[in-house]
Amino acid sequence: MSSSSGTLKIALVLIGNELLSGKIVDENGPYVARRLREVGADLLRIVVIPDDMDTIVEELKRSQTAYDVVITSGGVGPTHDDITLAAVAKACGRKTVLDPVLEGFIRSVFKEKTTADHLRMGTIPEGSDLIDAGPSTWPIVSIDGMYILPGVPQIFRKKFEAIIERFRVGVWYLRNVYLNAEEGIIAQLLAELEDRFEVYVGSYPIWRGADHRVRVTVESRRPAPVNQAVETLLAELASEQVVRVDAPVTDADAPPTSAN
Amino acid sequence: MSSSSGTLKIALVLIGNELLSGKIVDENGPYVARRLREVGADLLRIVVIPDDMDTIVEELKRSQTAYDVVITSGGVGPTHDDITLAAVAKACGRKTVLDPVLEGFIRSVFKEKTTADHLRMGTIPEGSDLIDAGPSTWPIVSIDGMYILPGVPQIFRKKFEAIIERFRVGVWYLRNVYLNAEEGIIAQLLAELEDRFEVYVGSYPIWRGADHRVRVTVESRRPAPVNQAVETLLAELASEQVVRVDAPVTDADAPPTSAN
Repeated sequence: MSSSSGTLKIALVLIGNELLSGKIVDENGPYVARRLREVGADLLRIVVIPDDMDTIVEELKRSQTAYDVVITSGGVGPTHDDITLAAVAKACGRKTVLDPVLEGFIRSVFKEKTTADHLRMGTIPEGSDLIDAGPSTWPIVSIDGMYILPGVPQIFRKKFEAIIERFRVGVWYLRNVYLNAEEGIIAQLLAELEDRFEVYVGSYPIWRGADHRVRVTVESRRPAPVNQAVETLLAELASEQVVRVDAPVTDADAPPTSAN
Repeated sequence: MSSSSGTLKIALVLIGNELLSGKIVDENGPYVARRLREVGADLLRIVVIPDDMDTIVEELKRSQTAYDVVITSGGVGPTHDDITLAAVAKACGRKTVLDPVLEGFIRSVFKEKTTADHLRMGTIPEGSDLIDAGPSTWPIVSIDGMYILPGVPQIFRKKFEAIIERFRVGVWYLRNVYLNAEEGIIAQLLAELEDRFEVYVGSYPIWRGADHRVRVTVESRRPAPVNQAVETLLAELASEQVVRVDAPVTDADAPPTSAN
């Protein structure tokens, strides 16, 4: 299967020195990858960049051109290294303005202790939409196909869940075939499956410590091609090469629609 | 501290649909981030892209222009989705050739079962260097500042450890200060520390469940500025705002030089 599925192309931009220096291990990338998969959407790029204005602006401009949706994570707090909102404005060629709704949120939280740095969290690209993210969560700032989310995983997830249904396309059906075969020997066979059926075929060698040497994945947006391709694969292999295989998929196997 | 440290700029390119579809959670990014940090090197970018020729070539070209060193992970096996070596050649404007040394490795492993797909693993950009990666490991292919590593974490690490000393610059010294303060209140103070001392200051809010609300990190390539900045920070804060602080750093605190 080689043609694009025609769904939204989504890119994730993770912003923060701490992710590149190893101080903090990113959790948002794997979360977004898993959740977008569950709603059948195509995550096509994850990039991790430092808290540097030129780098962020360049990356956002480029992502905006090449992808339909750009989700950012990080850099929206009140400290000196929190420059994502200003970078988004720059990338979109827009001014920043203190949004009265966000100002209200900020002042209701920090009251008479509110600082200019706090208010910078409400200073957003002119023309932004504010998307409701549920009770006790500030709204999500969105502009020109970009969704600006915070880096702290617990808040990131809550906000991401508030927008994920916008990206739902359907589901993916997948079967694993665990083989005691060497990848190079079965490479042609796997390539042929992809050409012949409406499926993607993945092949992941395992490095010791498992009962199999290769995990082959067969996936499609419909269950029937998955099952046809797997049956064809099994028919071509010697039985001693097959360690285990997932049961056939049916329409009932659609992944859960929520994170819980 | 705003000027660049003048070290090698390093980018990591992770190649594989499975990392974007959530089938496999990447381990190589966090590993490289942590290890490069331990040798004082600057990882400035991590990008995850699919097994798509145009995407890989474009990303490699761009990374090669903007960074001194480009490390790739994934796409070097024998199956249809393993196209990294061909993409590197394209990005460098070079032909691919079957390398006789790698051909020897391949034929010694697969013997009379060697396929054309196996030999593709030894078909590399013309003019590549082969870097010894120790016993029972195939050499690392390197060309024009790029190092081509496999995606399987165990092999990736072994090969990465064979080249990491090329990137050693020194070490980073870091102290954590755990505060019961609100970020927006201390934002100006943190920004001033960075202006005044030769340090980077990071600020990471904690989402519940900890004894502190913010973790502040102060780091530098020399221990003295770290200690000066931390003492200055502590002097400016009320004692009830400080939950814990790391002990002063000394030259003896350089991180370990090996992964073990």
